[in-house]
Amino acid sequence: MRAVVIGGGPAGMAAASRVRKHRPESEVVVIEKTRYVSFALCGIPYYVGGVIKSLDDLMYYPPSFFVEKRGINLELEAVAERILPGERKVVYRKGGDVRELDYDVLIVATGARSKRPPIPGLENEGVLSAHHLDEGDEIRRRVLGSRRVAIIGAGLNGMEFAENIARLGKEVHVFEYMGWPLPRGLDQDTGEVMRELLSAAGTGVKFHFGTPVREVRRSGEALKVDAGDFSVEADLVLVFTGIEPNVDLLRDAGAKIGETGAIRVDSRMRTSLDGVYAAGDNVEVINRVTGRPDWMPFAQEANKMGLVAGSNAAGKDVEFPGAVRTWTAEVFGIEVAGTGLTEAEARKKGYEVRGVVIKGRNRAHYMPGSGFLWLKLVVNDEGIVMGAQALGRGALARVNVIASLLPYKPRGRDLVFADVGYAPPLAPVWDPVVVAGRKLDPVL
Amino acid sequence: MRAVVIGGGPAGMAAASRVRKHRPESEVVVIEKTRYVSFALCGIPYYVGGVIKSLDDLMYYPPSFFVEKRGINLELEAVAERILPGERKVVYRKGGDVRELDYDVLIVATGARSKRPPIPGLENEGVLSAHHLDEGDEIRRRVLGSRRVAIIGAGLNGMEFAENIARLGKEVHVFEYMGWPLPRGLDQDTGEVMRELLSAAGTGVKFHFGTPVREVRRSGEALKVDAGDFSVEADLVLVFTGIEPNVDLLRDAGAKIGETGAIRVDSRMRTSLDGVYAAGDNVEVINRVTGRPDWMPFAQEANKMGLVAGSNAAGKDVEFPGAVRTWTAEVFGIEVAGTGLTEAEARKKGYEVRGVVIKGRNRAHYMPGSGFLWLKLVVNDEGIVMGAQALGRGALARVNVIASLLPYKPRGRDLVFADVGYAPPLAPVWDPVVVAGRKLDPVL
Repeated sequence: MRAVVIGGGPAGMAAASRVRKHRPESEVVVIEKTRYVSFALCGIPYYVGGVIKSLDDLMYYPPSFFVEKRGINLELEAVAERILPGERKVVYRKGGDVRELDYDVLIVATGARSKRPPIPGLENEGVLSAHHLDEGDEIRRRVLGSRRVAIIGAGLNGMEFAENIARLGKEVHVFEYMGWPLPRGLDQDTGEVMRELLSAAGTGVKFHFGTPVREVRRSGEALKVDAGDFSVEADLVLVFTGIEPNVDLLRDAGAKIGETGAIRVDSRMRTSLDGVYAAGDNVEVINRVTGRPDWMPFAQEANKMGLVAGSNAAGKDVEFPGAVRTWTAEVFGIEVAGTGLTEAEARKKGYEVRGVVIKGRNRAHYMPGSGFLWLKLVVNDEGIVMGAQALGRGALARVNVIASLLPYKPRGRDLVFADVGYAPPLAPVWDPVVVAGRKLDPVL
Repeated sequence: MRAVVIGGGPAGMAAASRVRKHRPESEVVVIEKTRYVSFALCGIPYYVGGVIKSLDDLMYYPPSFFVEKRGINLELEAVAERILPGERKVVYRKGGDVRELDYDVLIVATGARSKRPPIPGLENEGVLSAHHLDEGDEIRRRVLGSRRVAIIGAGLNGMEFAENIARLGKEVHVFEYMGWPLPRGLDQDTGEVMRELLSAAGTGVKFHFGTPVREVRRSGEALKVDAGDFSVEADLVLVFTGIEPNVDLLRDAGAKIGETGAIRVDSRMRTSLDGVYAAGDNVEVINRVTGRPDWMPFAQEANKMGLVAGSNAAGKDVEFPGAVRTWTAEVFGIEVAGTGLTEAEARKKGYEVRGVVIKGRNRAHYMPGSGFLWLKLVVNDEGIVMGAQALGRGALARVNVIASLLPYKPRGRDLVFADVGYAPPLAPVWDPVVVAGRKLDPVL
């Protein structure tokens, strides 16, 4: 059996490794367009900021590990150009050559790519975005050569790059259309808490919230960012306004696209094409809160989709149950996390929901270093928790508990009776999860 | 309606507050033997170590708050002597007076007390234990006046006191019968990891594991602790070999005692006596892993039992579903936590179990400060996770996720697909919970 994997990112390499594990006699070939495999894209901002010294550190394992220890054939710096599902062939380009490869099973893990917003002037020299490891070097080089950097978009990537570029002593401007940072994950109320925490943190970054960028213009040596009713000069403009799934190869081969615009797969990560699986940031899976397909391009889930695709491709039978859209970040020393639906998103999807925000503590009030932790629950009209957002040290730990419970449709009482641990240096006796759960329950 | 509460600790005050909340017209009287209410016993070691400056800081609210804001009558420095269930009366002593109080409902929250082991010589002057806030001052005074302190028992309390007394520059010896610290919560394998972490931490404390204390003797000004085949001199000996539920009042009144030796209550926290509830460290509740009664004297659950007892006493109807025995501590900078059954405990209870230990990371491998995290799962012969133990920064966060899932009888796959968040500064993309879950699943 020959399995071909397109894309050597986390999902692709997890899948490739599973095939070799379950079918040691099989041949597995991974076609990857860069020289990296198993890379942690989320580490790029920290490479740009000098926290991590080498892009090679961002690979979980080097290519040689996969070749030597796992017996996987790597076609690096090779670009898949076409899938011929009738003939079970992949056509790819490596160097100047066009090559073909037959497959018995194919796993497509082409990930996502930056999506540029319709702002005039983004084609100017000096305007960049990054979504792949091989762009990390160019961004770092350009950042180091710049005095002033403008970032468009205060999502996870925009905020992480802002922190890391500010770390280098650069002047950083961040422009965000919405009135608060991380608007995909935070509602307005928690977003305003985040704004206050950013102000208190003394980031050195100039944030411009509620400020759409109208145009980016070249002005001599510099770029001019026209936003709101003012302009800012910058030597480099980085665009982080979102990503989109890389579906071209599969769409051109006739695979069904889902309602989110990502590749449709069943619970075994099978596409609509015979013998063709897909996994990672290019597919949509079930959101376990809504029961509906959702596009959740998060690395931790891409890995698991890869495991499931690879295991099924190797003849095992395992279902991917879906995910709940858990995300987190630490920016400027502020921990922030969320899971499930935001209040705004839930409303947009037609749910009757309310939000409940509590301000609790992350350890016993009498312990040095005890700090505040904000926790918001999004609750539907049946009293079922559909999502959560948290800010402050310990945010992820609380969100993880709620994320783990979301598939079980928890009510306030289920959060109250979650037996989360207590010790003065680590958590308060009334954990924020319990405090928030009580807010939903008039009896407790 | 008059509700009487015996015991002004967390469970008692939670219950008293719920009664007043649901029945604002009711009279609520709390009989408390000290001058403190709503106290955090777990803070005492930190008071002794000088981390917390005043015992008053260990009260969540001062007595005046309960009197003025919640309209609760406090009988402080008053000792309940007898319950007369037929007459619905409590007899108590305050100052020199013996008084009686009629009740419509009674909530008994008498907590637990230190249990002294059968070691000869513990009656010597200079041998102490602490389980109540009013003992904190004496221990602190004695510790400050001592050069050498011996601690018997390396459980949670013993370890926390050892850390805090070492912090004061004292010579500290810890004697533990078992071969590793925290033997109630850690199995031998994780206990040995804990020993290694303690060695690496350079605690300054002399730990004597596998060393039962044979006798404590007075020798002139000092005490001599005979343990194993040697003796250690100490100015003060602290005994932390366990606690037991304070059941005397209720047992003498005819209430049923459960199989664990704690008060038996139903899911509404009702004792076998009409109109009498009990909550906190004096009762046994359902262990949601085994479905059997268990004595789980942990502050975070005592609070919740208090809420349930108080709400039901006020005429509401709410069930306490049980707990899973989650515990945690940070000692000498080492975070450690556990939940559910240990492997040893599960075997003793007749389950066929195995333990799986993984060594993962608490954040992305390439981030500064990335450290190791050990996670053990205890799994039964049907593949259901019955417990977990973790060590290293982030241990509690992982244990909390597993604790939250334990009531749902999770398998490895349920841990793999728990959508716990990932960001390089906060967690690795393969979270230890996921890594451990995969170890239980041959397909993933």
